[in-house]
Amino acid sequence: MARITSITVEDVRFPTSLTADGSDAMNKDADYSAAYVVVRTDATDSLGEPLAGYGLTFTIGRGNDIVATAARQQGAVLVGRDVDEVAADMGGVYRALTSDSQLRWLGPEKGVVHLSLAAVLNATWDLVARRAAKPLWRLLADMTPAELVDVADLRYLSDALTRDEAVAILEAKRAGKAERIAHLERTGYPVYTTSAGWLGYDDAKLRRLCQEAVDAGYGHIKLKVGASLEDDVRRLSIAREVIGPDRRLMVDANQVWDVPQAIDWMSELVRFDPLWIEEPTSPDDVLGHAAIRRAVAPIGVATGEHCHNRVMFKQFFQAEAIDYCQLDTGRLASINEIVAVLLLAAKFGVPVCPHAGGVGLCEMVQHVSVLDYVAIAGDLTDRVTEFVDHLHEHFTDPCVVADTGAGSGYVLPSRPGYSTQMHEVSVERYRFPGGDFWAAAPRNGSSAESSEESRAGALR
Amino acid sequence: MARITSITVEDVRFPTSLTADGSDAMNKDADYSAAYVVVRTDATDSLGEPLAGYGLTFTIGRGNDIVATAARQQGAVLVGRDVDEVAADMGGVYRALTSDSQLRWLGPEKGVVHLSLAAVLNATWDLVARRAAKPLWRLLADMTPAELVDVADLRYLSDALTRDEAVAILEAKRAGKAERIAHLERTGYPVYTTSAGWLGYDDAKLRRLCQEAVDAGYGHIKLKVGASLEDDVRRLSIAREVIGPDRRLMVDANQVWDVPQAIDWMSELVRFDPLWIEEPTSPDDVLGHAAIRRAVAPIGVATGEHCHNRVMFKQFFQAEAIDYCQLDTGRLASINEIVAVLLLAAKFGVPVCPHAGGVGLCEMVQHVSVLDYVAIAGDLTDRVTEFVDHLHEHFTDPCVVADTGAGSGYVLPSRPGYSTQMHEVSVERYRFPGGDFWAAAPRNGSSAESSEESRAGALR
Repeated sequence: MARITSITVEDVRFPTSLTADGSDAMNKDADYSAAYVVVRTDATDSLGEPLAGYGLTFTIGRGNDIVATAARQQGAVLVGRDVDEVAADMGGVYRALTSDSQLRWLGPEKGVVHLSLAAVLNATWDLVARRAAKPLWRLLADMTPAELVDVADLRYLSDALTRDEAVAILEAKRAGKAERIAHLERTGYPVYTTSAGWLGYDDAKLRRLCQEAVDAGYGHIKLKVGASLEDDVRRLSIAREVIGPDRRLMVDANQVWDVPQAIDWMSELVRFDPLWIEEPTSPDDVLGHAAIRRAVAPIGVATGEHCHNRVMFKQFFQAEAIDYCQLDTGRLASINEIVAVLLLAAKFGVPVCPHAGGVGLCEMVQHVSVLDYVAIAGDLTDRVTEFVDHLHEHFTDPCVVADTGAGSGYVLPSRPGYSTQMHEVSVERYRFPGGDFWAAAPRNGSSAESSEESRAGALR
Repeated sequence: MARITSITVEDVRFPTSLTADGSDAMNKDADYSAAYVVVRTDATDSLGEPLAGYGLTFTIGRGNDIVATAARQQGAVLVGRDVDEVAADMGGVYRALTSDSQLRWLGPEKGVVHLSLAAVLNATWDLVARRAAKPLWRLLADMTPAELVDVADLRYLSDALTRDEAVAILEAKRAGKAERIAHLERTGYPVYTTSAGWLGYDDAKLRRLCQEAVDAGYGHIKLKVGASLEDDVRRLSIAREVIGPDRRLMVDANQVWDVPQAIDWMSELVRFDPLWIEEPTSPDDVLGHAAIRRAVAPIGVATGEHCHNRVMFKQFFQAEAIDYCQLDTGRLASINEIVAVLLLAAKFGVPVCPHAGGVGLCEMVQHVSVLDYVAIAGDLTDRVTEFVDHLHEHFTDPCVVADTGAGSGYVLPSRPGYSTQMHEVSVERYRFPGGDFWAAAPRNGSSAESSEESRAGALR
């Protein structure tokens, strides 16, 4: 009998603040980071290698240690568990991890303890898919409707989605899976790029990156907005000029506006024909998003990267508050909660266009979007998944985006797992604060500077 | 010039799980705990003693260390700050503490980083009130409307409450403050008790505690429900029998139900004439609470102890989802966010009946309820604040509840500060894991047991 022998969690930080990658109206100095979980077992995989799972959640620097600490406490309950039992009952594993009422109090189901839960479960799902020698999307798509619903967390959803409805949604898409997989093998899953549009880039860099995106076959481009209306108008003019009238342009305000301000600001940007305004206000404001959506139509409203759980998404759907669901694979509690949201979105007819970027999010969302198309929504209409071309070099099975002639798309993942194993040299170099990079350059990057202050403060 | 010289944070846990105090349908083994912050300065107070501030947030055991770690990181930015400047600009202090976009990512404005922010700000407000030699409620009630609105966080609220409206609400209550204070000096602030109704108590203890509550002058009693309908019917029958038909009976389900289940269950309990059903479902489910409220009327719906920020309360009010606002002084980001919620509640006409109990929450809520009556709502109709008679012995200025002939009430706090300084001997004894209590009885209490497992797991 094989068992889980250890769960380790690393605080890994990349000094992205040095280049203004990831800068937006709310977040100006992000050091993209991962609370990186490794679940080790005494089993071997199909190749005779030691079987392990690798997963993460994403943060933007300071506090990544706090998430890692929470993940260590949550993960500990899995040590000693039978690997076959874990693989056969991921719904039960989820309940075991969420049933600690003392840690639940710190959310509930939100914030640090939910991010850390995502990291632990993401690594465990990676383990389960590797054990089955399948990419995670295929492991899930191969499940029967009842099996997939059994792993989904439907608690608090029954006023919007019953278990029977969930099974029926999946039953309705059992036929045609092979054709849909074949379609994605030809075209990839549709993507858009945010790499061009960070606020910290100057106009020349913005123009060059927009042109490169067009040349690379992107049909959608997203820009950050919200810091200065004058700057937004100038930058959107440049982008529209480069991409032309037919490609889609999205804008993202990263929560900087109140509701009335969002409506006013977008009335100035509507002339650039944006497909959606993303995160126009507080991610908690379901009714505010609904008000904005009514006011800015036909511009769509999108949110989700900070939507903390399925109960919030349920309400976004019930209130008809959003046109696009941008769930986040590091913020929702892994596949168990993501499947619930995909089912809700399918019932309410809202396209899921997951948030990605950061560290490892692109690696994960490709599995989620493929699963959604193959087994749940069964539709690509209005779907486009985020891609940011940063930090993939740190992963052993990085996502690949290619232009197949039908526009750029995520190439269907084929290797076992959830694609989130990092190279050991990357973990060693960027482990915070002791890794080679941070030890050699302690004043580089905003994580380091402020964390030194924090430590000094705590010691006084 | 006086400066803040240090911020220290202690992980203090009380072994309440040994006696089933605090047991409910969701939380069966709570060890009531505090992330306890001390802000030290090189100033002296009006008595010539060293000036410091003492504050906390409340958790129920495991993970209290995580909150303490976050509080250390957030508090560090205040070290070295000028005490007079801090006291004169608590709105600015709040913004300084909330403007760290990297830590903000871990919420935003929810979960661990919001609990820890509450702890740091609660201690800072205690410092500011001690410096002014006033109880905190009086410091705030003495502010002009503009000054009080300046400390309130109105971000994301302008679709429901503008700054001008907020000032107008306070202006309307400037007259009559002295009379309202005099009234509270005679009667105290109305309270109810939850001490009788924990799920872990047997029927005999329930009956005895209900009788004691009646004898002590309580007009309201609250019972936990939701684990077993049969048990609930039996326990509510006992409670009604003891308290009679005229005293008010409230019930609290601690989030265990889905929306349809809450409606069904309450249809069975309506015959006991409950005043409110508290936390019938997920604390995030604004629309779910609204649906429950429509279905269970005339039973009121109450929630708030897990409502994580002002944006959520805004929506509970906008959606007419609750009859009673049970804000929590350890979960909202201290006075800055609480005043915003009190203003919203006043505008929407929803009575605020704060959550208390735990550790130190009763000490804090008395200030909040008094402020609400004296300066904001100006009304006691339908107001009753929670009181749980546990753990007050650990505080240097514990809250006092007395029957003045008009029913039991919180006696108006008179000593400077926020009433949340703990005895040093209590901190020393219950510091986790090294304090005398935990060192001598490492297997007592659920914190200790599971945390040992956690530590062992992390070390493997």
